[in-house]
Amino acid sequence: MLFLARMDVVFPDSMDAVTKADLQAQEKEYSGNLQRQGLMKGIWRVVGEYANYSIFDVDGHDELHELLSGFPMFAHMNVKVTPLAKHPNATLDDFFGA
Amino acid sequence: MLFLARMDVVFPDSMDAVTKADLQAQEKEYSGNLQRQGLMKGIWRVVGEYANYSIFDVDGHDELHELLSGFPMFAHMNVKVTPLAKHPNATLDDFFGA
Amino acid sequence: MLFLARMDVVFPDSMDAVTKADLQAQEKEYSGNLQRQGLMKGIWRVVGEYANYSIFDVDGHDELHELLSGFPMFAHMNVKVTPLAKHPNATLDDFFGA
Amino acid sequence: MLFLARMDVVFPDSMDAVTKADLQAQEKEYSGNLQRQGLMKGIWRVVGEYANYSIFDVDGHDELHELLSGFPMFAHMNVKVTPLAKHPNATLDDFFGA
Amino acid sequence: MLFLARMDVVFPDSMDAVTKADLQAQEKEYSGNLQRQGLMKGIWRVVGEYANYSIFDVDGHDELHELLSGFPMFAHMNVKVTPLAKHPNATLDDFFGA
Amino acid sequence: MLFLARMDVVFPDSMDAVTKADLQAQEKEYSGNLQRQGLMKGIWRVVGEYANYSIFDVDGHDELHELLSGFPMFAHMNVKVTPLAKHPNATLDDFFGA
Amino acid sequence: MLFLARMDVVFPDSMDAVTKADLQAQEKEYSGNLQRQGLMKGIWRVVGEYANYSIFDVDGHDELHELLSGFPMFAHMNVKVTPLAKHPNATLDDFFGA
Amino acid sequence: MLFLARMDVVFPDSMDAVTKADLQAQEKEYSGNLQRQGLMKGIWRVVGEYANYSIFDVDGHDELHELLSGFPMFAHMNVKVTPLAKHPNATLDDFFGA
Amino acid sequence: MLFLARMDVVFPDSMDAVTKADLQAQEKEYSGNLQRQGLMKGIWRVVGEYANYSIFDVDGHDELHELLSGFPMFAHMNVKVTPLAKHPNATLDDFFGA
Amino acid sequence: MLFLARMDVVFPDSMDAVTKADLQAQEKEYSGNLQRQGLMKGIWRVVGEYANYSIFDVDGHDELHELLSGFPMFAHMNVKVTPLAKHPNATLDDFFGA
Repeated sequence: MLFLARMDVVFPDSMDAVTKADLQAQEKEYSGNLQRQGLMKGIWRVVGEYANYSIFDVDGHDELHELLSGFPMFAHMNVKVTPLAKHPNATLDDFFGA
Repeated sequence: MLFLARMDVVFPDSMDAVTKADLQAQEKEYSGNLQRQGLMKGIWRVVGEYANYSIFDVDGHDELHELLSGFPMFAHMNVKVTPLAKHPNATLDDFFGA
Repeated sequence: MLFLARMDVVFPDSMDAVTKADLQAQEKEYSGNLQRQGLMKGIWRVVGEYANYSIFDVDGHDELHELLSGFPMFAHMNVKVTPLAKHPNATLDDFFGA
Repeated sequence: MLFLARMDVVFPDSMDAVTKADLQAQEKEYSGNLQRQGLMKGIWRVVGEYANYSIFDVDGHDELHELLSGFPMFAHMNVKVTPLAKHPNATLDDFFGA
Repeated sequence: MLFLARMDVVFPDSMDAVTKADLQAQEKEYSGNLQRQGLMKGIWRVVGEYANYSIFDVDGHDELHELLSGFPMFAHMNVKVTPLAKHPNATLDDFFGA
Repeated sequence: MLFLARMDVVFPDSMDAVTKADLQAQEKEYSGNLQRQGLMKGIWRVVGEYANYSIFDVDGHDELHELLSGFPMFAHMNVKVTPLAKHPNATLDDFFGA
Repeated sequence: MLFLARMDVVFPDSMDAVTKADLQAQEKEYSGNLQRQGLMKGIWRVVGEYANYSIFDVDGHDELHELLSGFPMFAHMNVKVTPLAKHPNATLDDFFGA
Repeated sequence: MLFLARMDVVFPDSMDAVTKADLQAQEKEYSGNLQRQGLMKGIWRVVGEYANYSIFDVDGHDELHELLSGFPMFAHMNVKVTPLAKHPNATLDDFFGA
Repeated sequence: MLFLARMDVVFPDSMDAVTKADLQAQEKEYSGNLQRQGLMKGIWRVVGEYANYSIFDVDGHDELHELLSGFPMFAHMNVKVTPLAKHPNATLDDFFGA
Repeated sequence: MLFLARMDVVFPDSMDAVTKADLQAQEKEYSGNLQRQGLMKGIWRVVGEYANYSIFDVDGHDELHELLSGFPMFAHMNVKVTPLAKHPNATLDDFFGA
């Protein structure tokens, strides 16, 4: 079951560079794991913004919320989730190469 | 070069069912061609809305506008385009199985 | 898996009273069936508006979209869907008396 | 008399983890009491956000405001309340199993 | 129990002057009755707009929705309802001279 | 001459409880005086929010601004003012019992 | 007592050119009269839009609403009114040359 | 060439009263000079808000930006500028008494 | 003096294809003339939308409004104008090759 | 390939004047380099705001994001990017004098 998420990152003014870099490193590892497990099917940078669009493939809402709220930078992100269904004009059941 | 598009369809109240069905059939064929050519990497229905999110892979803006304005239902769609770049946390260069 | 939906109805100015009443009767039957099947767990009128909030319990996005787009008045509704997860402070697994 | 509430939590950047955890524990107890008393008929997490939708069943506006402003985290929440009436298509007088 | 309502009137372009005048006359009578019954405590014109703010005093949500949807011009109004509670700084229990 | 005002209070995160309580006590006294002088015809709490709707009866804009900017908590309030005129359907010249 | 108004004109698609021209001529005469009477202190076109900002000087809200709703094109205008007070930095009591 | 400006002032929570008063005194002097030079044709307080509408008469955009960014409180203001043209219904070339 | 304009075109549902094509041909000629006269320094299509961004270089607001309202499709466009000044980081006085 | 960007600068309240001036000097140098390399075709100040509109000419999205996120003040800017295509009414292939 697919969900599109847009995540916007806003760090507090007071956060120092080391804390930021540390959070970003944790984020990268966490994000990589989700991708390798097939739970995150794609992630792209919104050009010019500290934001991404990503697509998740999970079995349910509790799993997705657990997964999203587990992001190391979750406390500094605004996340909007859109549930996606199969489109009648889609030529493939799965666009992600499975 | 990837772009995320959200397309919302709004038909005029006065449009009859046959015209709608005809436009939808043309749209399906047009969309299928774009997918088969690798120009549209994916398309998904927004649950509960006459709308889709889709991802395009094109070489430039003129090509993308020509492609979008060529949709048979273009006159009845609101389209918003977001340019996407590679995300630093992405584990793949191409999430679409290429 | 639960979803909150808000549906706002906007009929075209040109629709006559008989067509409206007919659509509303079909809608009532369709909605009643969804409730009896346990797919729609609740529906409430937004006070002062031709709108409702309702809660759906379905197995997936394709099922939910099929169900929502099957509403007899779907062409005249704006629908916004919000996926709901279990809340950590919830005292029940299911608030709908199951 | 039913009300839908959406509550969004925003903690100040300066709040430390212990204060947060303490507020969350108080919140859980307060919320549980409201549920056990039948004043809060349901509460669900908005997927991907520090936010909930909840439904309250109270006798009046003063009672509801007292109840909402009594939440331990009230000073850090944005709350929007929507009054709900019986929907003409509802098959039950009470969807919460009473 | 008090509610503030804002009602904005939008007539279809195609409505003729006689129909409008007839609806306005019915509206005036309906509104007058609500005021005389003490259900509508006040109504004021928003300066420069075909809109009003009004305050209702009813026993519940079903009653309020029935009352609002009974307005002869309801199909041509956008209504937003805000529930009001007693303010801690209020010097009177009832500002409407009861 | 009547004006509807909506006032939303937002205290800075850094304000301590004593300062808040002190401001609130001053506010209550100030508000009470305006009500007793007949300048504020009513004030109601927006359910679930640190906000009020209130109605002012003043002779002019300079007087109203002086009065509003004199609120002890004015620096922490967002205020929106709407001028109100007599409604053609009103059955009373003055709804406030004068 | 001064008010700033912004008026946006939206004619129905179906209105013919003669009706428009006739309304515009009536509007010009009506507007000119208000200016000559000193009730409208100024009117300016918003560059690029069928809209104006204007400043009214009236004794009260009922007068202003009567004046605004008397515009021949009122049914085709969206009007937003902002009450203006004397600014503490103003060097003149009246900027309009009185 | 006329421009309407709306300026909203937002001071940081941490600014002390002396700094505020000093900025306000500088602002008053600066604003007075602009008015005496005929560059600012009028300034009015938005009732209930720490905001003004003002009208500028300048020869070009560079001059206007220099003038606006020179306000002592510029760093604490949100400014929105609207270019104004002569209105076809205007009875005067200059409403400001020149 | 430069202005950025965004123009969004919305044709009425009832407009036939010949009228549209005729308006578009007139528009192209009008736009070309403005460009050749150096009044319009550039025009670009917003990708995916029936909209453009364009930059105008005119001597004043009356001239710009006359020019914009002279567009053959003006009645079917929403136009928003933003005045532009020289940027302190600009390396050229004129970016358009003059 | 052209992109229009709007950048709004918001510095934290706590940033001192020296840091600001230093960032602005770095920004000016960085911006000048982009212009000299032909990557930034133009930049203009939005009159009255700490904001600019600028036009970029790059080969792809990764290049543009790298370029934008490299601005010394990027952490303090909100950037919105709009992809631009050739307009059918354009009389030149390149408006920037190439």
